[in-house]
Amino acid sequence: MKLSLYFITGVIGLAAALPAAAQFQRPEQAVKYRQSALSVMGTHTGRLGAMASGRTPFDAAQAQANADVIVAMSRLPWQGFVEGTAANTRAKPEIWTERAKFDAAAAKMQEEALKVQAAARTGDIAQIRAAMGNLGASCKACHDAYQVPQ
Amino acid sequence: MKLSLYFITGVIGLAAALPAAAQFQRPEQAVKYRQSALSVMGTHTGRLGAMASGRTPFDAAQAQANADVIVAMSRLPWQGFVEGTAANTRAKPEIWTERAKFDAAAAKMQEEALKVQAAARTGDIAQIRAAMGNLGASCKACHDAYQVPQ
Repeated sequence: MKLSLYFITGVIGLAAALPAAAQFQRPEQAVKYRQSALSVMGTHTGRLGAMASGRTPFDAAQAQANADVIVAMSRLPWQGFVEGTAANTRAKPEIWTERAKFDAAAAKMQEEALKVQAAARTGDIAQIRAAMGNLGASCKACHDAYQVPQ
Repeated sequence: MKLSLYFITGVIGLAAALPAAAQFQRPEQAVKYRQSALSVMGTHTGRLGAMASGRTPFDAAQAQANADVIVAMSRLPWQGFVEGTAANTRAKPEIWTERAKFDAAAAKMQEEALKVQAAARTGDIAQIRAAMGNLGASCKACHDAYQVPQ
């Protein structure tokens, strides 16, 4: 419980430090920003996932490096979900009609990313695998609810 | 000198932790990765630059947050410059025929990003402005040499 509060406080603190919805001058800049951040995050999630599942050799230093990038990237995309930027993207309108739920899903993902980082610090692949499973579930829950299927 | 060596060691250490040229399965993934990382970096460089030049109000916490993202992003794009991935991009072939020079330019940019981060920690806008000027010069030098003009 203490740990969970720490994570939540951290996430809120970061959101406050990078508000910035108003910092995109054009809607397409916000779209490009969030898509870029999620793409970079996806690359590193894929790499760490491959290690965790044994598809690539486990390397503790690279696992940590990937986890650090995942955490850094996990903080960024949300500011790009500016209202009125669903057109020509896979973002569902529910992101803005259920904003509090979307924000909670985003916070959950950031919390799971921090747990992946903590697991990567241990060098224990079983812990990393478990944490990556939870992170993946948080990604999927949000995609299922708020992303138009391809 | 000590500081400079610290920066260089740090940059080399990071490069070693994220080698990964071989981790992209398709050339277009490497291109998307480097373009995404540079795009996110550009957003935050633009924001901190606007603050440093007085175009937007100075906010010390936001300056630090932007600088932290700049540093995190500065480490990433280089692994995406995989040989044979110039097609349909603005990457000049000299990136690969002069790879050591390109890598030195990349290392220089990462060094300047770390100095921006240190300046942002002071909260002194004059120091941030100076460091951002040097970072911008390192971006420009590399773009001038290795990017096809638009």
